[in-house]
Amino acid sequence: MKLVVTGGAGFLGARLIGTLLSQERPAGFPEFTSIVSVDLAACPVDDARVQSVTGDIAGKAFIESVITPDVGAVYHLAAVVSGQAEADFDLGMAVNMAGTLTLLEACRKLPQPPRFVFASSLAVFGGKLPDLVPDDIAVMPQSSYGAQKAIGELLVNDFSRKGFVDGRVCRLPTIVVRPGKPNAAASSFASGIIREPLAGVDSVCPVPTGTRLWISSPDTVIANLIQAAVVEASRFGDTRTVNLPGISVTVAEMLDGLERVGGKDARARVTLAEDERIKRIVLSWPGDFDVTRSLSLGFTRDGDFDGVVRAHMRDHGQ
Amino acid sequence: MKLVVTGGAGFLGARLIGTLLSQERPAGFPEFTSIVSVDLAACPVDDARVQSVTGDIAGKAFIESVITPDVGAVYHLAAVVSGQAEADFDLGMAVNMAGTLTLLEACRKLPQPPRFVFASSLAVFGGKLPDLVPDDIAVMPQSSYGAQKAIGELLVNDFSRKGFVDGRVCRLPTIVVRPGKPNAAASSFASGIIREPLAGVDSVCPVPTGTRLWISSPDTVIANLIQAAVVEASRFGDTRTVNLPGISVTVAEMLDGLERVGGKDARARVTLAEDERIKRIVLSWPGDFDVTRSLSLGFTRDGDFDGVVRAHMRDHGQ
Ligand SMILES: NC(=O)c1ccc[n+]([C@@H]2O[C@H](COP(=O)([O-])OP(=O)(O)OC[C@H]3O[C@@H](n4cnc5c(N)ncnc54)[C@H](O)[C@@H]3O)[C@@H](O)[C@H]2O)c1
Ligand SMILES: NC(=O)c1ccc[n+]([C@@H]2O[C@H](COP(=O)([O-])OP(=O)(O)OC[C@H]3O[C@@H](n4cnc5c(N)ncnc54)[C@H](O)[C@@H]3O)[C@@H](O)[C@H]2O)c1
Repeated sequence: MKLVVTGGAGFLGARLIGTLLSQERPAGFPEFTSIVSVDLAACPVDDARVQSVTGDIAGKAFIESVITPDVGAVYHLAAVVSGQAEADFDLGMAVNMAGTLTLLEACRKLPQPPRFVFASSLAVFGGKLPDLVPDDIAVMPQSSYGAQKAIGELLVNDFSRKGFVDGRVCRLPTIVVRPGKPNAAASSFASGIIREPLAGVDSVCPVPTGTRLWISSPDTVIANLIQAAVVEASRFGDTRTVNLPGISVTVAEMLDGLERVGGKDARARVTLAEDERIKRIVLSWPGDFDVTRSLSLGFTRDGDFDGVVRAHMRDHGQ
Repeated sequence: MKLVVTGGAGFLGARLIGTLLSQERPAGFPEFTSIVSVDLAACPVDDARVQSVTGDIAGKAFIESVITPDVGAVYHLAAVVSGQAEADFDLGMAVNMAGTLTLLEACRKLPQPPRFVFASSLAVFGGKLPDLVPDDIAVMPQSSYGAQKAIGELLVNDFSRKGFVDGRVCRLPTIVVRPGKPNAAASSFASGIIREPLAGVDSVCPVPTGTRLWISSPDTVIANLIQAAVVEASRFGDTRTVNLPGISVTVAEMLDGLERVGGKDARARVTLAEDERIKRIVLSWPGDFDVTRSLSLGFTRDGDFDGVVRAHMRDHGQ
């Protein structure tokens, strides 16, 4: 059987594919003999078991050509990220909403309902929120990206209830430290203020240092995306949606961790210059969650922020 | 300017149109000189100010032909109801989800963002719920109708946030007593067990008598749909979605009311025969809500259930 990963050329997609190919198949994980990356760009993972198909998931015919009867499981990670979906409403709707629906409809035609893991985001939340956000809080997206992800969640849940797919929705924390270049996500700075200083580059923080973020390291998120496909369907109960565990840190605590692990010079490279557009989006996101349910389903979280910084430095030979 | 009412041939649509034409325009209500009913069926309201356009809101070209630049406000009431949307998934998706999106996209092209009132439903709720449901509880639809309404809510909210429409979402209680014939809604029995006995006809109740329902009379819902277009946009705060006030009654209390107002004979016409399909849907709906916010926005509710029964009898000369 094939495992399809949309967004397989992206940060998480490529990392997920690399991890899945480098380890034994975890007990309970769907069997697969090859992985198909479906993305606008080519998958960077160099492995004979990876087939890289390039195309636009907003196209129905393209989607139908990749969801062939031998597909046993799907990771749906392709998305237009938050900043871009806000700037280009139509693109966000076409990819994040219509693309997700088209993919689900194609999966519905498969001989067996495939396991279907969807990457959602805490950008679905907004409005007045308690300090510790419980599982049953209403979503109230304050961005089009968040609204489109929330719609995707509802679709995956209803397609699962109907037995068309065996869906699992992971609301990802903000991922820190994301390697590479800054991107159009409103959360891009959260990695930038650690990654850039450690590489000797100046970085600007666009939100107040008291801002509380809900974060996870890349390794932990990948482990949790794999776990999402492992959990037995019945254990989800009334909803397939899970707030993945993370750790709750303020920007000030992150900068302190940067200084402890990376030194005073690194810390000194971060300057503050608030950006209203980014603040408006980021301040609407929750900073801390009740993780009782997600931990009980076998999802995991990082130990502390210093460890997150150290893992990044180790990954990058720093 | 024109006021468009999709579903204008339906129970609530026709009643809304009739009410709007028979009273003075309420202060704050959008100005209009004519009302366009957009429905598969012809609008039954006989008034020169009503233009009845028949067609399918799932059709993009049709929608675009009715949302002309002189449209100042829209009531979106057309929908495939719960039982039918569960039985015919594709029809529900085409009308309740895609139709709503197409309508919003057409409204976005208008010279001025129109006031846009969307009729949602408490069928968006499900899963474990507290006895008194607060405003900020997560939706967890246990039917495709509920999922499609929840998606419509997210769309109306995001289109409003972007300034494309000035949206208002009303989650309607179950309407009792709905006149006319039983329909495919899972809640159809809630009217049937009052309406049929009062007309001397036997009726079957498919849920246990302890089932708690959140109900509203037709008159009150119409008044609230009108109020939804009157409330000043800024008063909605972080969300355009409102749980309309209702009254909380058990089926047993409804049958007691039927007996008090309609007599012992009427009560004796109701027999109990549980229906698993209907029970599964109806028991997932909440039976009581915190109405602090909705009352503060000027929405209203019925006094008590006996009054609801009496209003129905008065309407029907009984
Ligand atoms: N990284 C985070 O902090 C974070 C947080 C929450 C949620 N997520 C979600 O996780 C998923 C993966 O995130 P990421 O960080 O790897 O993002 P990314 O931007 O690195 O990867 C997304 C990939 O999707 C592809 N893509 C975009 N539009 C496409 C289209 N129309 N057709 C085909 N492919 C398309 C891009 O080419 C890219 O390779 C996304 O759905 C994202 O919304 C990420
Ligand atoms: N009555 C209730 O208890 C209740 C409760 C909650 C929500 N609602 C919602 O209120 C709205 C009105 O409800 P109602 O009780 O008047 O329902 P109704 O069934 O009497 O009216 C719906 C109307 O929509 C029309 N319609 C259906 N599909 C259409 C299509 N493809 N194109 C054009 N028109 C189409 C039907 O012809 C019908 O006239 C609906 O959106 C419903 O979901 C009703």
